[in-house]
Amino acid sequence: MLRFPRLAFALLLAPLAPAAAETGRPNILLFLVDDLGWQDVSVPFHTEKTPFNARYHTPHLERLAARGLKFTQAYASAPVCTPTRTSLMTGQSPARTGITYWTLHKDRDQSAKHASVRAPKWNVNALQKDDVTLARLLQSAGYRTIHAGKAHLGARGTSGADPRNLGFDVNIAGHAAGGPGSFYGEHDFSAKHRGGGAVWDVPGLEAYHGSETFLTEALAREAALALDDAVEDEQPFFLHFAPYAVHAPIMANARYLERYAGLDEREAAYATMIETVDAALGALIARVEHHGLTDETIVIFTSDNGGLSAHARGGERHTHNAPLRSGKGSAYEGGVRVPQVLVWPGVTRSGTATAVPVVTHDLFPTVLAMANVATPEEYAPSVEGLDLGPLLRGDADALGERALFWHMPHFWGVHGPGIHPYSAIRKGEWKLLYFHAGTRFELYDLDADLGETRDVAGSRPEVVRALAAELGAWCEAARASMSIDTETGRAIELPHRVGR
Amino acid sequence: MLRFPRLAFALLLAPLAPAAAETGRPNILLFLVDDLGWQDVSVPFHTEKTPFNARYHTPHLERLAARGLKFTQAYASAPVCTPTRTSLMTGQSPARTGITYWTLHKDRDQSAKHASVRAPKWNVNALQKDDVTLARLLQSAGYRTIHAGKAHLGARGTSGADPRNLGFDVNIAGHAAGGPGSFYGEHDFSAKHRGGGAVWDVPGLEAYHGSETFLTEALAREAALALDDAVEDEQPFFLHFAPYAVHAPIMANARYLERYAGLDEREAAYATMIETVDAALGALIARVEHHGLTDETIVIFTSDNGGLSAHARGGERHTHNAPLRSGKGSAYEGGVRVPQVLVWPGVTRSGTATAVPVVTHDLFPTVLAMANVATPEEYAPSVEGLDLGPLLRGDADALGERALFWHMPHFWGVHGPGIHPYSAIRKGEWKLLYFHAGTRFELYDLDADLGETRDVAGSRPEVVRALAAELGAWCEAARASMSIDTETGRAIELPHRVGR
Repeated sequence: MLRFPRLAFALLLAPLAPAAAETGRPNILLFLVDDLGWQDVSVPFHTEKTPFNARYHTPHLERLAARGLKFTQAYASAPVCTPTRTSLMTGQSPARTGITYWTLHKDRDQSAKHASVRAPKWNVNALQKDDVTLARLLQSAGYRTIHAGKAHLGARGTSGADPRNLGFDVNIAGHAAGGPGSFYGEHDFSAKHRGGGAVWDVPGLEAYHGSETFLTEALAREAALALDDAVEDEQPFFLHFAPYAVHAPIMANARYLERYAGLDEREAAYATMIETVDAALGALIARVEHHGLTDETIVIFTSDNGGLSAHARGGERHTHNAPLRSGKGSAYEGGVRVPQVLVWPGVTRSGTATAVPVVTHDLFPTVLAMANVATPEEYAPSVEGLDLGPLLRGDADALGERALFWHMPHFWGVHGPGIHPYSAIRKGEWKLLYFHAGTRFELYDLDADLGETRDVAGSRPEVVRALAAELGAWCEAARASMSIDTETGRAIELPHRVGR
Repeated sequence: MLRFPRLAFALLLAPLAPAAAETGRPNILLFLVDDLGWQDVSVPFHTEKTPFNARYHTPHLERLAARGLKFTQAYASAPVCTPTRTSLMTGQSPARTGITYWTLHKDRDQSAKHASVRAPKWNVNALQKDDVTLARLLQSAGYRTIHAGKAHLGARGTSGADPRNLGFDVNIAGHAAGGPGSFYGEHDFSAKHRGGGAVWDVPGLEAYHGSETFLTEALAREAALALDDAVEDEQPFFLHFAPYAVHAPIMANARYLERYAGLDEREAAYATMIETVDAALGALIARVEHHGLTDETIVIFTSDNGGLSAHARGGERHTHNAPLRSGKGSAYEGGVRVPQVLVWPGVTRSGTATAVPVVTHDLFPTVLAMANVATPEEYAPSVEGLDLGPLLRGDADALGERALFWHMPHFWGVHGPGIHPYSAIRKGEWKLLYFHAGTRFELYDLDADLGETRDVAGSRPEVVRALAAELGAWCEAARASMSIDTETGRAIELPHRVGR
């Protein structure tokens, strides 16, 4: 191995040596957890420690945060899975890719039926074989690209269902479905124990069938082996670890249950799923340490949307992301704000936090820049995410007064606050929501009202007007397809045209 | 607790928020391990991973290094305990304090008898009640100052034997002696089980007497409780954790022995002592995490001199710090180069390393600056250490082409390479040693010859001349007392006067 001698020269030449990460091909360990809410960890992302931070136990994420940069205002590209996942892979917003909702079967729209609007035509098969992806660009640059866990990047029966068609050298248990049949090896990770369909059968983990292995643990073990292989072959790795958890079905990992005695049974089970994900983070970081690659490995931890709160949870609905309002599927903060931590050895400073709003598709240009991989010239104009590099290096003003946008012209099917087809813009303290049904606005000052309880659209018409104009211009630029009014059969107005 | 709301405002105001550490009164956890050699940990401080790094197991130090800055060329102020410890407390070199050797009894010189030179008059009682110390300055600024473990800062029967007379609010088990009677609670931490003197009885841990508690573990528990008290009282803390270990007597902690099966029995015992220190580091960091203070706590880990190698160890003598030559008590690198890691949340970058040479007494102005505590104006001219702040912030050139100096006009009593009364200078790649007996020079190019095997004094007279001049000027400025020639009864020549 040439690894240590290389570091050696760096030390002699450069008194404060940046890790090899900044100059070579750093390894990238990207944790994309499923449905993990902003409050679903013991690291505080709010301005104060909350009861949820006290309830959940994620010591490895705590350590990761102590090593690097915590994003207190990180957003998922969408409030449901597939759009966020495909935006990470493409650097584009869901509006631009046309992948605005979750996918499953070829050519089938999974949108739920809404009373007054329906979904427009959208990209129901999601990513396909020839699409440019983050994984493919890294693969072309010499990375061993490893996917482990939930893929949910392309529909069943299409090329995109297999991550190996999307730039991954290795696929561990990923396919078209957005959830596992079961988290238990005893169930063969299948839904058959409860009479569920074979579409949810987790593929490729037959070695664990019948054993007492929790799905997340099996994924971590297999991912560690794939990581070992890459190291042995002296290839840098991109490990996209997407552990199915903490997506439903909510099933306890008995190993961790004792700590959560006294909690509602389902909430206790949920807490064990979180702790299992954290243990997987710890195990993979330990593997990196074992290989002596800590200084050459970037670690990113984030989630694909807000925490589930509208159903299937214990306790009162829509409260599981408090102080944020609502949860997965919703336009409110609970649906899109996610935990995010990033460690870039030699670049990020230990124990720092930033409140600059960032979004999942920022990770596309960010990871490419960290890996010193160029975006193809013809593809660059499609990339909406920004390279967070300057922010990671400590320049808080690098991103300027950027607006972030969301667009989901779909009804998620479960009723709850903000769970409606919508478009939205966040800029500075303001967040303007444009609900497609009834073409109505809500405006919140997030600095003063993080919980989105006081709609000030009526009293601040000039803010509504300005943000609606910016949102409308973006919808046009991104060619966002608006919801269809079921009564007229025509697309609803763009936000800046409403009432004109 | 006002802690979180304060952080909250910081986040809102400053997008990339430096932790409270940089602006307020950060907590300081300073690990000053005893006799821990440069190779006595699993973190590599050499340019490559060594067999010693593979032998020892210090996962918590690995994690600390991953969070912050590793110093690959950190030096102790002296090759034995008391001078380094008192230099940390005063910011002065041992030559300037006159505390050039280890202390024990009031007015008694512990120097061993040498064939041709003897020790000059020196400060045999070490620090006393009215001396300015790092602890006292922090205490005056509102810190809860906690000492735990080996003090060895002032002689028995004098005020300096009690750390509470030197600026510590709390003293856990510290006194005049530089070693413990035993590391075992079953022995009451006393040497009486082997017929040793009461002077080695560790004071104040009676609650653990007769129990199966290893001394380092008892210290960690008591230190954690003292830390809890400070947090409860909303005082920032300075915890000076100096765990007696890994000083002799070398005694195994059975809890960890299994991992070291196959090693020489004494070496295995030594390895368990190291792992126990690392576990204490982990326990105290976990305590900090538990209080939610990770972002507001600076952690420094270092040692007071090189690793013991001249006696009492298994295997071949003088090889335990390889690739460095010799060990504790020696003028060679094995005697003075030590492991050092520093994490300043929001300032140091994760996983970085610096090869800039630094020395223990640099920590005096560094800690004060980090704590925003001014050095008294009349004391400032005495401070020889430099504030490492700019280096911690990433400016590798901040310290310029500084020379480091050592001066120990004492014989340590055990024979081995470089274990002689000496003065020395390190500048750039060069290290000039001036051995008092025979007033002779040795010159090494550390970049080309880290193991100090090729003395080039004969072939590079111009380098010898220049460095001897600089060393001599420093000896005069610091009023370094030179060894006495036993034949003439007069002090030996200063290095720049030799041969004139």
